[in-house]
Amino acid sequence: MLRDIADLCRRMLAGDRRALARLITAAEDGGAALPAIMKEIHSRTGRAHVVGLTGPPGAGKSTLVWALAAEYGRLGRRVGIIAVDPSSPFSGGAVLGDRVRVPARGAPPGVYFRSMASRGRLGGTPHAVRAAVSLLDAFGKEVVLIETVGAGQSDVAVRTLAHTTVVVSVPGLGDDIQMMKAGILEIADVYAVNKADKEGASRTAAQLSAMIDTGREAARAMGADDPGGWTPPIVCTVATRGEGIPDLVAALERHRQFLQRSGRAELLNRAHAAAAVQDALFTRLEERLARPDVACEHTRLVDEVGARRLDAFRAADLLLARLGASE
Amino acid sequence: MLRDIADLCRRMLAGDRRALARLITAAEDGGAALPAIMKEIHSRTGRAHVVGLTGPPGAGKSTLVWALAAEYGRLGRRVGIIAVDPSSPFSGGAVLGDRVRVPARGAPPGVYFRSMASRGRLGGTPHAVRAAVSLLDAFGKEVVLIETVGAGQSDVAVRTLAHTTVVVSVPGLGDDIQMMKAGILEIADVYAVNKADKEGASRTAAQLSAMIDTGREAARAMGADDPGGWTPPIVCTVATRGEGIPDLVAALERHRQFLQRSGRAELLNRAHAAAAVQDALFTRLEERLARPDVACEHTRLVDEVGARRLDAFRAADLLLARLGASE
Repeated sequence: MLRDIADLCRRMLAGDRRALARLITAAEDGGAALPAIMKEIHSRTGRAHVVGLTGPPGAGKSTLVWALAAEYGRLGRRVGIIAVDPSSPFSGGAVLGDRVRVPARGAPPGVYFRSMASRGRLGGTPHAVRAAVSLLDAFGKEVVLIETVGAGQSDVAVRTLAHTTVVVSVPGLGDDIQMMKAGILEIADVYAVNKADKEGASRTAAQLSAMIDTGREAARAMGADDPGGWTPPIVCTVATRGEGIPDLVAALERHRQFLQRSGRAELLNRAHAAAAVQDALFTRLEERLARPDVACEHTRLVDEVGARRLDAFRAADLLLARLGASE
Repeated sequence: MLRDIADLCRRMLAGDRRALARLITAAEDGGAALPAIMKEIHSRTGRAHVVGLTGPPGAGKSTLVWALAAEYGRLGRRVGIIAVDPSSPFSGGAVLGDRVRVPARGAPPGVYFRSMASRGRLGGTPHAVRAAVSLLDAFGKEVVLIETVGAGQSDVAVRTLAHTTVVVSVPGLGDDIQMMKAGILEIADVYAVNKADKEGASRTAAQLSAMIDTGREAARAMGADDPGGWTPPIVCTVATRGEGIPDLVAALERHRQFLQRSGRAELLNRAHAAAAVQDALFTRLEERLARPDVACEHTRLVDEVGARRLDAFRAADLLLARLGASE
C-alpha cells in the first residue's frame, strides 16, 4: 500500500489528476497513508497562496468561491478548491454534499474541486484537509481556496492553513447573527459583503467597519499583536453576477504581496509548520495508544478513572510512562 | 500554590462558595492547578446530572437556562450553570460577557453561575470547563447546566461532558440556518423549540421532527449505533414567561432515568472518562514540549518543517523520541 502511495505521488507530481484524487481519498481515510504522502511531497509544497473563506450559511460562499476561481482562471492562475462540510458526528458524513456546491454548468476547466467532511474530531483542523492543501500545492495549483461553513472552531482552525482569510457577510442577517460572527470577524484579512444588491448592504458594510474598529481598539488595549500595517478591506460583491469579483481578487493579491513585503509570510509559514507538527504529534500519540499492549492498559486506566479511583491526569502520566517504555 | 489548592478544595467541599469561585478561576488559568484540583476532588464527582444546552444565538438559551434553574429550584434541586462563551481568537476574551447573561433581577438564590471563555484551543472541550463541571459536582450541585453558543465543534464537544444534550431551536430562522444546525441536531437527546409563541413554531417543530426521522433513517442505513429505545421529545417553551419549562424539566428527568435504567449511564460515564484521559494526555504532552531542553528541539524541528527539509510526521517522531528520552 505504501509503495502505491509513492507511485501515486510520482504520477500526481507529473500532472495526473486521477492520482491526485486518489491521494486525497487516501488522506481522508487516514492511517499510514497520511505520513507516507507527506513524506513524498513535503519538499514540493509551500508555493500556493492558500485562501480560507468562511461565514454563515446562506452568505453565498459557494457561488463566491466559484466566481473567484473563474476570475483567477482569466488571470491565468491554476486554482484548487476544497469545500469543508460541517460534519455529522452521528453518521460521520458530510451534511451538505457536492450536489449543492458544484455550479449547475459544471466546474470551469482547470479548476480542481473537492468536498471533504470536517468529521468534528478532536485536535482542530482535520489532517485530511491539511494534506489536501499540500497535495494541491504540490500538484502545481497557485491558488487554493478553502471554503468552510458555519461559525465554529473549524473556521478559526482555517487560520492554521490559510495565508489569507476572507470572512463573507451578507445583508439582512439579524444582529444576533452578527454577534455570533463577532468571534470569527477578528480572523479576517479581507471582508466580503456578498449579495450586495440586497437591501441593507451599505448598513452591513458600515456595521462591519464599526466592529473592526472596536475589535482593533480592544486588541490594542489588551496589548495584542499589532496587525502591522494591514487594514482589512471590505469588498462588496454580487457573486451570482460576477460583480465585485475582480476587486476581491485584487484585494487578495494585495494581501499576498503585503505578506511577502512585510515578512509576515515567513511568520505565517512557521505558524503553519508548528500547527502541522502539533497535529502530527496528536496523530502519533493516538496511533501509539492503539497498540495492543498499550490499548489494554489504556482501557484499564479509563475504567479506573470512570470508577473515580484515579484522576485523569494521573492516568495520563501512567499511560505516557507506558508509551515511553514500549518504545 | 499547590498547598493552597488542597486547602481551597477542603473549604469548597465544606460548602464555601468563595473557595469554589477561586478554584474555577485557578482551573481557567490552567497550569499545575488543574491536575492538583482533579487529584483532590475526583473521588467526590460523578453524582450530578450534567445537561448541555446548545443552539444558535438568538434562540433565547440564556433565558431558558435561568428558567430551568428556577424550576429545578422549586423542585428542591441544587443547580449550577456554566455559560461557555464563544472565544475571540484575537483578544482571547469572551465575546459575550456576563452582562447579557445574568437575568436583570439577579441569580435566584442557591444557583451558582459562571461564565467561561471557550478560548478555541486545539483538543476540543476546554479543560477548564471540564474542571468547572467536576467542581460544581463535588460542591454538591445535583444539576449542572452548560450553555454553549453557536453551532460549531464546541457544541459537539459538550457531549464529552453532558449526560443529556438539549438542542434549542426557535421559529422563524431560515432554512439555511436549519441546514447549519443539521450537524448539531443529531447530538440532541431533547429538543426545545423556544419562543414558541412566535409565528411558525409548529412548522419549526414539524421540521425538527422530519429532520430527526431522516437522520435516524440515515444512521440506521449506515449501521450506526441504535439510539436504544429513546425517542428525543420536542418540547415547546416560552422561557420569558416560564411556559413549557416544567415539561422540559420533566423531559430531562425522563432522560436521566432512561440512562440509569438502560445501562447507558454507565457507558456515558466511561466515554466521559476516556475523553478526560485524552484531554489530560494532550495537556501533559504540551507541558513536556514546553520543557527548556525539549522546547529548543521543538523550535528547531518546526523550523525544519517550515523550510520543507522535514515533514511534520517525521518531526513528530523525533520529538516523541526526545520526550521519551527526557523522562
